[in-house]
Amino acid sequence: MTHSRTVELEGHIIDSGTLQRCFGAVMDLGGSFDVEQFDVGKHETEVSYCRLTVTADDAETLRAILHELHQNGAVLEDPSDVELVAAPADRVVPPNFYSTTNHPTEVLYDGEWIEVERIEMDCALVVEPEPDAGGRDADASEEDREDGAADGPRAYTKVLNAVEEGDLVATDQSGIRVRPPERPRSGGGAFGFMQGGVSAERPSESTIREVAEELREVSERGGNVMVVAGPAVIHSGAGDALADLVEAGYVDALSAGNGFATHDIERSLYGTSLGMDVETLEHPRKGHKHHIWTISEIIRAGGIAAAVDEGTLTEGVMYQCVENDVDTVLAGSIRDDGPLPDTITDAIEAQNAIREQAHEADIVIMLATLLHSVAVGNCLPSTTKTVCVDINPATVTQLLDRGSAQAVGMVTDIGTFVPTLAEYVLEGADDTESAACDDAAEDA
Amino acid sequence: MTHSRTVELEGHIIDSGTLQRCFGAVMDLGGSFDVEQFDVGKHETEVSYCRLTVTADDAETLRAILHELHQNGAVLEDPSDVELVAAPADRVVPPNFYSTTNHPTEVLYDGEWIEVERIEMDCALVVEPEPDAGGRDADASEEDREDGAADGPRAYTKVLNAVEEGDLVATDQSGIRVRPPERPRSGGGAFGFMQGGVSAERPSESTIREVAEELREVSERGGNVMVVAGPAVIHSGAGDALADLVEAGYVDALSAGNGFATHDIERSLYGTSLGMDVETLEHPRKGHKHHIWTISEIIRAGGIAAAVDEGTLTEGVMYQCVENDVDTVLAGSIRDDGPLPDTITDAIEAQNAIREQAHEADIVIMLATLLHSVAVGNCLPSTTKTVCVDINPATVTQLLDRGSAQAVGMVTDIGTFVPTLAEYVLEGADDTESAACDDAAEDA
Amino acid sequence: MTHSRTVELEGHIIDSGTLQRCFGAVMDLGGSFDVEQFDVGKHETEVSYCRLTVTADDAETLRAILHELHQNGAVLEDPSDVELVAAPADRVVPPNFYSTTNHPTEVLYDGEWIEVERIEMDCALVVEPEPDAGGRDADASEEDREDGAADGPRAYTKVLNAVEEGDLVATDQSGIRVRPPERPRSGGGAFGFMQGGVSAERPSESTIREVAEELREVSERGGNVMVVAGPAVIHSGAGDALADLVEAGYVDALSAGNGFATHDIERSLYGTSLGMDVETLEHPRKGHKHHIWTISEIIRAGGIAAAVDEGTLTEGVMYQCVENDVDTVLAGSIRDDGPLPDTITDAIEAQNAIREQAHEADIVIMLATLLHSVAVGNCLPSTTKTVCVDINPATVTQLLDRGSAQAVGMVTDIGTFVPTLAEYVLEGADDTESAACDDAAEDA
Amino acid sequence: MTHSRTVELEGHIIDSGTLQRCFGAVMDLGGSFDVEQFDVGKHETEVSYCRLTVTADDAETLRAILHELHQNGAVLEDPSDVELVAAPADRVVPPNFYSTTNHPTEVLYDGEWIEVERIEMDCALVVEPEPDAGGRDADASEEDREDGAADGPRAYTKVLNAVEEGDLVATDQSGIRVRPPERPRSGGGAFGFMQGGVSAERPSESTIREVAEELREVSERGGNVMVVAGPAVIHSGAGDALADLVEAGYVDALSAGNGFATHDIERSLYGTSLGMDVETLEHPRKGHKHHIWTISEIIRAGGIAAAVDEGTLTEGVMYQCVENDVDTVLAGSIRDDGPLPDTITDAIEAQNAIREQAHEADIVIMLATLLHSVAVGNCLPSTTKTVCVDINPATVTQLLDRGSAQAVGMVTDIGTFVPTLAEYVLEGADDTESAACDDAAEDA
Repeated sequence: MTHSRTVELEGHIIDSGTLQRCFGAVMDLGGSFDVEQFDVGKHETEVSYCRLTVTADDAETLRAILHELHQNGAVLEDPSDVELVAAPADRVVPPNFYSTTNHPTEVLYDGEWIEVERIEMDCALVVEPEPDAGGRDADASEEDREDGAADGPRAYTKVLNAVEEGDLVATDQSGIRVRPPERPRSGGGAFGFMQGGVSAERPSESTIREVAEELREVSERGGNVMVVAGPAVIHSGAGDALADLVEAGYVDALSAGNGFATHDIERSLYGTSLGMDVETLEHPRKGHKHHIWTISEIIRAGGIAAAVDEGTLTEGVMYQCVENDVDTVLAGSIRDDGPLPDTITDAIEAQNAIREQAHEADIVIMLATLLHSVAVGNCLPSTTKTVCVDINPATVTQLLDRGSAQAVGMVTDIGTFVPTLAEYVLEGADDTESAACDDAAEDA
Repeated sequence: MTHSRTVELEGHIIDSGTLQRCFGAVMDLGGSFDVEQFDVGKHETEVSYCRLTVTADDAETLRAILHELHQNGAVLEDPSDVELVAAPADRVVPPNFYSTTNHPTEVLYDGEWIEVERIEMDCALVVEPEPDAGGRDADASEEDREDGAADGPRAYTKVLNAVEEGDLVATDQSGIRVRPPERPRSGGGAFGFMQGGVSAERPSESTIREVAEELREVSERGGNVMVVAGPAVIHSGAGDALADLVEAGYVDALSAGNGFATHDIERSLYGTSLGMDVETLEHPRKGHKHHIWTISEIIRAGGIAAAVDEGTLTEGVMYQCVENDVDTVLAGSIRDDGPLPDTITDAIEAQNAIREQAHEADIVIMLATLLHSVAVGNCLPSTTKTVCVDINPATVTQLLDRGSAQAVGMVTDIGTFVPTLAEYVLEGADDTESAACDDAAEDA
Repeated sequence: MTHSRTVELEGHIIDSGTLQRCFGAVMDLGGSFDVEQFDVGKHETEVSYCRLTVTADDAETLRAILHELHQNGAVLEDPSDVELVAAPADRVVPPNFYSTTNHPTEVLYDGEWIEVERIEMDCALVVEPEPDAGGRDADASEEDREDGAADGPRAYTKVLNAVEEGDLVATDQSGIRVRPPERPRSGGGAFGFMQGGVSAERPSESTIREVAEELREVSERGGNVMVVAGPAVIHSGAGDALADLVEAGYVDALSAGNGFATHDIERSLYGTSLGMDVETLEHPRKGHKHHIWTISEIIRAGGIAAAVDEGTLTEGVMYQCVENDVDTVLAGSIRDDGPLPDTITDAIEAQNAIREQAHEADIVIMLATLLHSVAVGNCLPSTTKTVCVDINPATVTQLLDRGSAQAVGMVTDIGTFVPTLAEYVLEGADDTESAACDDAAEDA
Repeated sequence: MTHSRTVELEGHIIDSGTLQRCFGAVMDLGGSFDVEQFDVGKHETEVSYCRLTVTADDAETLRAILHELHQNGAVLEDPSDVELVAAPADRVVPPNFYSTTNHPTEVLYDGEWIEVERIEMDCALVVEPEPDAGGRDADASEEDREDGAADGPRAYTKVLNAVEEGDLVATDQSGIRVRPPERPRSGGGAFGFMQGGVSAERPSESTIREVAEELREVSERGGNVMVVAGPAVIHSGAGDALADLVEAGYVDALSAGNGFATHDIERSLYGTSLGMDVETLEHPRKGHKHHIWTISEIIRAGGIAAAVDEGTLTEGVMYQCVENDVDTVLAGSIRDDGPLPDTITDAIEAQNAIREQAHEADIVIMLATLLHSVAVGNCLPSTTKTVCVDINPATVTQLLDRGSAQAVGMVTDIGTFVPTLAEYVLEGADDTESAACDDAAEDA
């Protein structure tokens, strides 16, 4: 006895690779399919439609196949309402809970498709039947509500540790549909569509120029530019260039760690005299005393902003972030010295702060940090453009694999990448300076 | 005024990704398309058919688009005969010559589609109107003729340096059709379809087991197993395991360099006593005198086979290759010491020898050598299964990008990979020993 | 006017490279030296002695030179007592505080050289004039006192965030002497002396065998074996082999992250049936729901030990750690899902827990995790043997650079390394089983 | 019964690490030593002297120890003349032949120390008793004689394949002394002394600036600058910058492969129009037809210089090399297309051409090619400064391990390194333009 179900797919499903993945999944998992209807988009601007019946020898196989098809945007022919089960305890999900993708998603509730807010992968999907007028979370919930969300039932993602007893959590996948990103109707320049690969064939400087243009465009239209930076940015001498970008208003959010901030501040406090520079170059261990002393000084001052206020810190990336009101998150890690008082040492608290940044970002530039880039990438919807730069190809590949449909990966030296990027962004900005300034002003 | 042409695609063009690439190419290159007819394969075993008209604003764009579609298997609606132009001089191709892909290819000549022999990428495609009965190459040409090729006109690839004045060389791409590999109708195990990526998520031992099974199957059905090996195989201590595979009849061809052979022979001549081993481990520079002496000894003996005959060389990979009549090619390089008298020092001559091996191979195992693996990969049709193993992810990625539709890439330590592979191949062979022996006997 | 000081060096200062580094430092930093006395060790077992006067053009240069010489074990000819300054506030060090190396260190206090306890680099050095009989930290302080520490004044390291207002912190470097590790009088096998390099020339299996022997020896003499493990240990299929080592009593402490533990438990809960395995292999994204569900289940049970007690968790590394009372620290990070309730989410708290483990360890095996390995390495004295294994050469190099004088680095696949190591350790243990068992019993 | 010998060491043997290595070798190999006399250099400009007696339990161990000491510059107390044995056949060395290091070397012949010419590692050392006045090699031999070599007996290195029957080949190591490079008396800037490591801690731009200064200095004093370049230089867009350096007279020799030259010429012939560039960027396979066509065109023209003469090739690196009479060697390899008629396809012939270049070079810049860099590095004496740049840390480490005492390694992107280097070299040249021009004129 065989088991079968009929699903529908709609959109630019041929050139976005959706159909290829769906047909492949059926075959790989040992099922078979019959195409009931296929209306091809006659022209690149027309969508296609496909209705197919999937058959498998047993229910388990069919379920696995339907799961794959679902993740690629397929919807059951006659979808029923999402199945909700109350979370049995705080931080505990019901059996067979639905784990989100990072794609735009809707749930069918009371016969209506509702857009899921705060899209992020590997979360629970919680439906709130109606605004909880009197509950303890009423205000927070209202505040979180995304712009334009009408009154009525809402749906949003919750990471496991935010799940509370009684939350109505979606289970199975019926009544849920996802919309994987579609290939843009024209070429995306350096930002390839779902390539997940790293081209070593492209001229480096051309690619950097394209990234600079994208960054300028996002910034000039008031978008949010998020930079994720590792300590190598400072070690490699690229700190000044990044500080210039911050000063010129091209960075709206900075996500980094205690190490990045400390190295940057140490360089600002100790790195200006030639004698010092030479010593640091030849005796890196010598610098470590400066490192600890830097943290001690910032603790003494009461934090980074306080150190700026009292005139101790007068240049560098962190200085510019304070002066330009950049939304800065310093997340702690077990390898930190100190840490600085500004560092959030609790991983969950830090992750939540990063999550807020990630949800705001329109473009994310990840510079030479695997740890922080993965943390940010985990929170990003698949629709956010990302740029990943690292000297290690494995790092770049790992970051590109995580999900943005439009990503640029570069295996290159951060010490030359950032200055070149800054040069292109800032020189290109000469003609459009006012726009950039306006944007900076708005951000402030 | 716009330019347009109509092309046809047929086969498993959805799940093999062909349509996705074709639609994408049109859009990326700035053209547009209209689907004239689309017959979808209703079931995973039925092929699909698509006829589409491509339009561009200028002839140059249209040509670029048609080139991409052609490479993905599209054929002009009313194909005309292949256009042949005589090569103006030895090693000189006519303008607008057709450069081959590594996919199975046919040419339309005198109204008949002829299969192109000796498929290899980046070659000229030469058509021989009828067997050259009295010419100087008659015998060679006959000899080269692939099995089952009927009398009548022939088509084959020629690398640039083999092109002779007067050869009829295909130009443009009309009258030529390629058949990119299609996704197998069922999962390929470790050999993913056109993945070109390297999964770090797969358990290493499971993947090695799958490769071992494939290797045994190919060997047992009388197929040709080619091993491409770098010196790291010997340095890392994996030489014995490779020698065991050769001895057991699982290797039909070995493609390596002077360094591999010298290290292997040096180990056979000097590496057996414990004292020596310890010295080599701790003082690698010490070993270099042995290296030169090894080459000198083989020169004195008159070559590797002569050294086996006189009893000087009695173990190791090269010894087993001599004893088991393995087709061995040692290609020279500019970093060689010596070299051994068996090493082919001329790059073109060596490349031709490698080409013969590659065209015979049913599966190619590439072990820790970028140079030799690229040389072999350049000569392989896209239908040959390949396994690439290297500690450097960039090497594995580069090799997988080159073209086989069914490839396994592993970023792992050759010093543990080869022994594990040999163990799985040889333990699995216990039940089927006779088959493996027959195969070995046949090869001899 | 020149500035000069006279220092003394004593020990195996020639073959340990001490003199080379000292002479080099003087020249690199622009000073000059005069050797006042040099008594060479006539034989490899005799120590050498050198008294030299260092001269520089200015006080700043002389200070920089003396700092380098100090770090290499030089002591001023007529050392005065250590200079102590009270910390001005919690987590704030006095100007010119002394930042520790990771070498054994002594301070001259009241004319007596006192051994510094809890050696770790980049810390403050605190002297406690006499046991603080009635103070708030009396008990903790007594508890921390290392074995054999006599009554009287004590000296120990404190990381910055442990410094309390009023702590007597060493400043400058007078009255402090360090003893960099000396070259062992006989070859160290795989554990090279201060090599800091990664030999790709050594046969992998031989090196693993040497590591296995060292690990067995440490374990059999009752030493402490610490394993630092990343999630790749589980992904690559090496979890069973590590669990075997734990079960056999060869692991005393495990330092890992939430990801490692979750993957291990997920594999234990879901990875046994063949069907699941196949799915996981081919659809890694599918597994993510299991990942979240695994964490949710452990939260529901009340933690890992509770899940073992209730019979939910019955195999794998974490199970064996619970059953064998292995000292386990799971440190949180910003990229974690969940996390498990056993995970320490605060970075400082987690670092302190890791510090306790590191100070106990006699040998540390670092498996495929940069983050946790750096965190552990930061806390290790230079006398602890370390083994670093990673597929990425940059990771191995970075870890070896951090300081153990006797370290083995291997660039290899963790998926074959751990099973091979376990095989060698466990097969070698056959003859000496009772010793290993006794050790396991003692640990428990 | 023990065996012992007495050896002498002289020079900056402490700070150059010589004594450390010698004492360590004795202990590692199981011997023991007694220092008979030790005169320390009292000041950094004075040399030290050490006479020590080495003892071992057996003759074999003593021989191994003496071999190590010899390689580090030790000489037997009462050296006897070098032992010469006639080569038994062409390309065959006598048993126990002496294999050279890459350090400056002398042989004791007829009671006189003679400097060995053409120093290169892993060669035979041939002594020519007196100028062979009437022999067949008289002219060649005279021609090869290095400047300043007086009449009388000569000694020089010969690679194995140059050894001729009857050549008087040095055996054992008595009567031979080597002089390993000594640490410069003052800091070498970016060019560390025997560091063999790659610092990721140094600011990239500072290091490039130091390399630029060194390159300018060498060029301005009439020294020979050799560039070794891989195809990535062109792919990454750095070709123009390298062409600028050639044009400005800063490159005396170029060592590359067929791929480098073809990509450069292809870019010159096809890469100028924007349309082409864009196509190439997005469809790298498309470019391959251009690649083959480029080679065909150069073959048609009769070679690269002929293509410049006829006006076909008008820009790029190869064009500038022709125009500026740069000594160019293109070595063939088995992965080449074509090749170009200028490519030397025989590995031995190519190696000999590279050897001539290497022996002339004062500084060698290795850019993104492992194969050619190893080939060049094999021929270099340890006294030649080298700069190795590659995106792959393993490549840089491997090259630095091979022998120059003064080397800079950078793990960076060639696409940004070369333009930055060119900018620094050329901007720095503004003040000293005449010197650079004079140098270029001299070279021509």
